[in-house]
Amino acid sequence: MENLIQPKILKGFRDFLPDAEIKRSILIEKLTTVFRSFGFVPIDTPVLEYSEILLRKSNGETEKQVFRFEDNGGRDVAMRFDLTVPFARFVAEHKNELYFPFKRYHIAKVWRGEKPQAGRYREFVQCDFDAVGSDSVAVDFEILLMMKTALNDIGVEDITIKLSHRGIFNRFLTKLGLKDKSEDILRAVDKLAKIGKDETTRILTEITLNESVAKEILRYIQGSDTFESTLALMEEMAGGEAEDTKRIRDIYELMRSLGIEKSYKLDPSITRGLDYYTGVVYETFLNKLPSIGSVCSGGRYDNLAGLYMKDRISGVGSSIGLDRLIAGLEQIGLDKQSSFIDAEIFCLDEKLTSHYMQTAQKLRTYGISCEVFPDAKKIGQQYTFAEKKDIQFGILIKQEDADKNVLTLKNLKTRETFENISVEEAAKKIIPNLKN
Amino acid sequence: MENLIQPKILKGFRDFLPDAEIKRSILIEKLTTVFRSFGFVPIDTPVLEYSEILLRKSNGETEKQVFRFEDNGGRDVAMRFDLTVPFARFVAEHKNELYFPFKRYHIAKVWRGEKPQAGRYREFVQCDFDAVGSDSVAVDFEILLMMKTALNDIGVEDITIKLSHRGIFNRFLTKLGLKDKSEDILRAVDKLAKIGKDETTRILTEITLNESVAKEILRYIQGSDTFESTLALMEEMAGGEAEDTKRIRDIYELMRSLGIEKSYKLDPSITRGLDYYTGVVYETFLNKLPSIGSVCSGGRYDNLAGLYMKDRISGVGSSIGLDRLIAGLEQIGLDKQSSFIDAEIFCLDEKLTSHYMQTAQKLRTYGISCEVFPDAKKIGQQYTFAEKKDIQFGILIKQEDADKNVLTLKNLKTRETFENISVEEAAKKIIPNLKN
Repeated sequence: MENLIQPKILKGFRDFLPDAEIKRSILIEKLTTVFRSFGFVPIDTPVLEYSEILLRKSNGETEKQVFRFEDNGGRDVAMRFDLTVPFARFVAEHKNELYFPFKRYHIAKVWRGEKPQAGRYREFVQCDFDAVGSDSVAVDFEILLMMKTALNDIGVEDITIKLSHRGIFNRFLTKLGLKDKSEDILRAVDKLAKIGKDETTRILTEITLNESVAKEILRYIQGSDTFESTLALMEEMAGGEAEDTKRIRDIYELMRSLGIEKSYKLDPSITRGLDYYTGVVYETFLNKLPSIGSVCSGGRYDNLAGLYMKDRISGVGSSIGLDRLIAGLEQIGLDKQSSFIDAEIFCLDEKLTSHYMQTAQKLRTYGISCEVFPDAKKIGQQYTFAEKKDIQFGILIKQEDADKNVLTLKNLKTRETFENISVEEAAKKIIPNLKN
Repeated sequence: MENLIQPKILKGFRDFLPDAEIKRSILIEKLTTVFRSFGFVPIDTPVLEYSEILLRKSNGETEKQVFRFEDNGGRDVAMRFDLTVPFARFVAEHKNELYFPFKRYHIAKVWRGEKPQAGRYREFVQCDFDAVGSDSVAVDFEILLMMKTALNDIGVEDITIKLSHRGIFNRFLTKLGLKDKSEDILRAVDKLAKIGKDETTRILTEITLNESVAKEILRYIQGSDTFESTLALMEEMAGGEAEDTKRIRDIYELMRSLGIEKSYKLDPSITRGLDYYTGVVYETFLNKLPSIGSVCSGGRYDNLAGLYMKDRISGVGSSIGLDRLIAGLEQIGLDKQSSFIDAEIFCLDEKLTSHYMQTAQKLRTYGISCEVFPDAKKIGQQYTFAEKKDIQFGILIKQEDADKNVLTLKNLKTRETFENISVEEAAKKIIPNLKN
């Protein structure tokens, strides 16, 4: 006999068993429905690309993490580590085939050889949505509205989307004569929530070599009570009204006209560290679980595909951290559903298989998902099977039931039982509980 | 200025632009709905696995085609080239966490470094569904029923699922004293449809060194007129009734009891070459386009995970060649839908953005997908945009319409126009045309 190979997967990688994969599928389907309802369209790009395409702009950290190799044809290739770089390449390559403003969503796996740790995996799913080719406030607002709608539709009502504008912050730093130190300052500001005011002031003093300037920055990033008073403070400290403050004001007006402003907070400490962003930036927090960090972040950029083409294409986009979101939903108990199956037809007599199959087919015409247990195992075993699969209804049909064209329907959760009813009657009792 | 990088993808890989990706998504969603309605559950496995796991059983041909490399931790890893090997590893690894019979579907990308040619890609999607842990005829039949249902539900009614049984064929070959040559014979028989009777007879004569035996094999694989007469012929030539012929007969009875037998044909030339299969085997052809080959094939096997564990787990499964199916649907004109968006709200006045957004939100509550054009571009440009995106309805709202809370709805395909109607009235006209 051959030696057995131990069935094991690579460190940092995961199998998704049905329970976890069903939850992930439900989430992805709900998000997809929202994206489509706003007119966003799907695209797909290859998992493997030329390393030159993926890595040109990346820093050393990314290079170390990427799965990169030489293929059988001697090409230097790599597995994508995000969906942004492939999107930029895609837009540059297909710009003449696309219709602008181009709004796309892309939900797909990416790979990073990070040190595996709690909640960090080497293979994970990203969920990006971007609208490129329009500078309009309508698009800025639409992405913010979609973020709220998407989270609400997966059952999370209690969120805060914190937003700010990189342009206003840049004006403020320029006014302080600190434009050349903006990268260090952005990085320090980004940590405010994590390290607190005092430590942030200390770091800012180190960077600016001036404690009163550091305190001025702190005053800016702490903002004020309301959206409007914070905007007034930012505007004043940045040197007055300009396009950037007008943009935030317009966005706020749109929020108010749709009555959704309570879910948003103007927070000048939001900067999204990266150089990439140039306009509005935002992060999203679960109010019941702010500690897990932002579950949906993004912003406006003014040159998506500059590495690959001369035309500048601006846009605005956001990305949902699906794994973090799933972990969050679990912690706040919003991940209940773990079955797509509504009913199990138990096998009491293998001679009735054809009758069971016919019954199942009839139920399916009502949109009911149901499975037929294939073997006449002990009924206790069959009940356990249905229970483990989180199936709500059981259907029992003996020979004499089949002869009379009736069945027994059992609600496996409440134990409520309906005897001698027709398939149609059973369907009517199941339908209000449909999982799909 | 930096040099630009030419935006290009690897040979044999593809971008999916919205039109193609929408078609692929629709297909996958319809298939998924069918799988779930039969109680099949989704799983996922990593794209990268230890090469030892993926390649142990493979022949030299697979090894040459696989994307295999050493990762940053010095591990010998490979990208999966099918979904069967990972499924076997998955079942062996998680056998104590699964409930048997375990019925799963898995729709995901796989990679093979094949020579790129028409219709052959290095990255493609496989769609597998298997039921393991039951020898019951109910499961054999269910997979066959699902194959028909899945194809019918994506709009393909006119199909033939050809089936046979490896056990009967084996008995027949054993009776002829040719058991040791069965692999060569299977390979020759598999080509009957492609190379014709004469050439098949010639090859079979070469293998068996006996023309009359070759003709006997040809008589077997050509079968007879009807399901029943073919079964009688096979049974007689294989040496009488046995478990294998009883299984085919039971399957046929189930087909008849559900009134679906016309879609199936007993065809003894179907063997599915591989050693892997041990029971029923099948292939599916589009009657309007048999030349593209089988779009859905599979069969029963008796030892899924023998490389990874001692327990034998039998099962039955099938796989849809999604790319081939999509190509086939295109050729027979069954790939009409290429938009998820029902309505475009044109931008006639940027000051009305908030009103447009509110109107869109109201329409979405009716399940209508609609997008708001963000910029007040020339209306002709906006029409062209909506047309290219295959959007059926356009909505026009001027300031005076907004004041009166009415709008103009235009069917962009028929040019039919409804003026001065409310959002609710517009929704009622759009709903019968909903794409989702």
